[in-house]
Amino acid sequence: MSYSEKSLKMHEEKRGKIEVISKVKVTNKDELSTAYTPGVAEPCRKIHENKENVYKYTSKGNLVAVVSDGTAVLGLGDIGPEAAMPVMEGKAILFKEFAGIDAFPICLDTKDVDEIVKTVKYLAPTFGGINLEDISSPRCFEIEKRLKRELNIPVFHDDQHGTAIVVSAGLINALKVTNKNMEDITIVVNGPGAAGTAIVKMLINLGARDIIVCDREGIIYEGNDKLKGHKKELSKITNKNKRKGTLKDAMNGADVFIGVSAANIVSEDMIKSMNKDAIVFAMANPVPEIMPDLAKKAGARVVGTGRSDFPNQINNVIAFPGIFKGALDVRARQINEEMKVAAAYAIAGIISDEELNEDYVIPNPFDKRIVERVAKAVARAAKESGVC
Amino acid sequence: MSYSEKSLKMHEEKRGKIEVISKVKVTNKDELSTAYTPGVAEPCRKIHENKENVYKYTSKGNLVAVVSDGTAVLGLGDIGPEAAMPVMEGKAILFKEFAGIDAFPICLDTKDVDEIVKTVKYLAPTFGGINLEDISSPRCFEIEKRLKRELNIPVFHDDQHGTAIVVSAGLINALKVTNKNMEDITIVVNGPGAAGTAIVKMLINLGARDIIVCDREGIIYEGNDKLKGHKKELSKITNKNKRKGTLKDAMNGADVFIGVSAANIVSEDMIKSMNKDAIVFAMANPVPEIMPDLAKKAGARVVGTGRSDFPNQINNVIAFPGIFKGALDVRARQINEEMKVAAAYAIAGIISDEELNEDYVIPNPFDKRIVERVAKAVARAAKESGVC
Repeated sequence: MSYSEKSLKMHEEKRGKIEVISKVKVTNKDELSTAYTPGVAEPCRKIHENKENVYKYTSKGNLVAVVSDGTAVLGLGDIGPEAAMPVMEGKAILFKEFAGIDAFPICLDTKDVDEIVKTVKYLAPTFGGINLEDISSPRCFEIEKRLKRELNIPVFHDDQHGTAIVVSAGLINALKVTNKNMEDITIVVNGPGAAGTAIVKMLINLGARDIIVCDREGIIYEGNDKLKGHKKELSKITNKNKRKGTLKDAMNGADVFIGVSAANIVSEDMIKSMNKDAIVFAMANPVPEIMPDLAKKAGARVVGTGRSDFPNQINNVIAFPGIFKGALDVRARQINEEMKVAAAYAIAGIISDEELNEDYVIPNPFDKRIVERVAKAVARAAKESGVC
Repeated sequence: MSYSEKSLKMHEEKRGKIEVISKVKVTNKDELSTAYTPGVAEPCRKIHENKENVYKYTSKGNLVAVVSDGTAVLGLGDIGPEAAMPVMEGKAILFKEFAGIDAFPICLDTKDVDEIVKTVKYLAPTFGGINLEDISSPRCFEIEKRLKRELNIPVFHDDQHGTAIVVSAGLINALKVTNKNMEDITIVVNGPGAAGTAIVKMLINLGARDIIVCDREGIIYEGNDKLKGHKKELSKITNKNKRKGTLKDAMNGADVFIGVSAANIVSEDMIKSMNKDAIVFAMANPVPEIMPDLAKKAGARVVGTGRSDFPNQINNVIAFPGIFKGALDVRARQINEEMKVAAAYAIAGIISDEELNEDYVIPNPFDKRIVERVAKAVARAAKESGVC
């Protein structure tokens, strides 16, 4: 049976994947009077006296909302909030299984940026953190920016930053394998959507100096009057030599290709035109920009994809559970750049120098060490950067 | 240790009362690919093809939002959304423990009626039903009315209807004990808030013809120009003899007193002035309008309170779990009058004629038979009244 068939059967049999259970028993009068009225009035009073006590007496501190409007779900696009539910439930159970965090799907019946921002703000008292998910670009940028500014709990758009952190971890290790330095390499990022944009910003934070971004029209360059919004912003912080041309032109002589775009758009010839020991992260799903065997044949040294059936899987589940755990553990008010960078290095550091090789630059998602190490690094970075 | 102390200790030790767990395992690549990508795309597609499939492949059909703005929490009043969390978590676990329904607290950081209505509408794709809780009167009336009109899932303000249903069940049985008829009796309802208003409307549905409602100013009567909103409405459907005066005047010669008001405002003399075999439901919490021993001493035959340490406890947990279970089981689009009346009779019917006595007109909240019987009656009423 295919995963599609198995998944359909399982979802129908279980009628969804999440369950909300009680941590306490309410099977008799005494238990009811402790968990509910009249006893419950006391924790209410304590929180009313000091709002901070909500972290002490309720589930808030370990509760994350997985918020989506269903506009950019997997490779399926704008399928609406109801159809997004299986993914958001899935995300919620990953939070629980990987990090012990209680997460709840919130699928919103509006696509309006203002309304989404307001709604999430209204929901905030219940939650210790907000994970934005599968919200289409460029709307996702404004939604995240405004929520980060207006809320004092962590807000994290995983499609952007989760992906950026895992790619960064993979690249840190791939550069070790190929004996190259972040500062010296040329990186091509194809697809300036949510993930692509976050990857560019994060790699700059990690020291990258020469990044070329391509969209469907080719290389993005400063001074192209057609560019707007986040693409215009990207043009100002990338492509310092103001190159123009196609994706093919961009890849000629590049060290790294990072694809968050579409199936089969990179040819063997394009890989051959890259520098020696090329690094290729081809993350289009389910079919990558170039299949790993072809990329390798054409001379790429390190190849990663989004798929679990090839080496070096770039899977967000490596990052977000530990990131939220770290942030919630120290009650960070936000997840900032320092915390993301710390997460990337923690993930990269899971693989020792002895183990490191071209087919193992990104740890296995089921490696039990990841979540604790990432959480610890993120919590430390939160403290050092003063957001908790 | 008092319930307050026990409750505070328990809430701190457990750090809240709810937990979101997974119904499926995601401990290896195969399980992850079934519960999450790539397999999860298939249920998403099926729901995108036909929105109704969301009930087949997700948790929505068994998921209830417990929504509050924290404006009328227990006897504590407007304590805000954070301080309301312990109560909403409590309500959520009662849904699970009593009816197997997964419920989730949503404490909203707005008191604006329009904003609350919009927010709940935006949240609706995730939920199979909405339980409004502890929202102050009269705002609660408009919020419920608009949501009922605009959503096609059940919306139920438990403070209103849950209370009304249990009071109705108790009164049905108390009238049997005292050999009186709903059509012939005079009922005084003191406190025209959320619960009081719903009680009046429900008792009229059950055949009551002479109800007198009192607020702090005394008897509500048609033609009093000071009355506005729901009180004005109440004046039109009650007090057919246009009586005026105080609560004391109203109780003189009445058969039933229903208090949803304040501690100790009913005297022994007022009870003495009632008809023979008086029925007194004094539900102010934690101290009733009159203590049961005093009411009995003054001649009341049946006495109920909101407290678990006296006979005939009027506790909403007797009603809402079964009502939601019945509604969700048949996927009712709303919870209508027929369903509420069916619930009241199902609750009353738990106690056989042989068992029935003045100290046992309302079943014990922990009576295991209640939820199934109420759910069945509510589901049948939903079908017969054409809302599913």
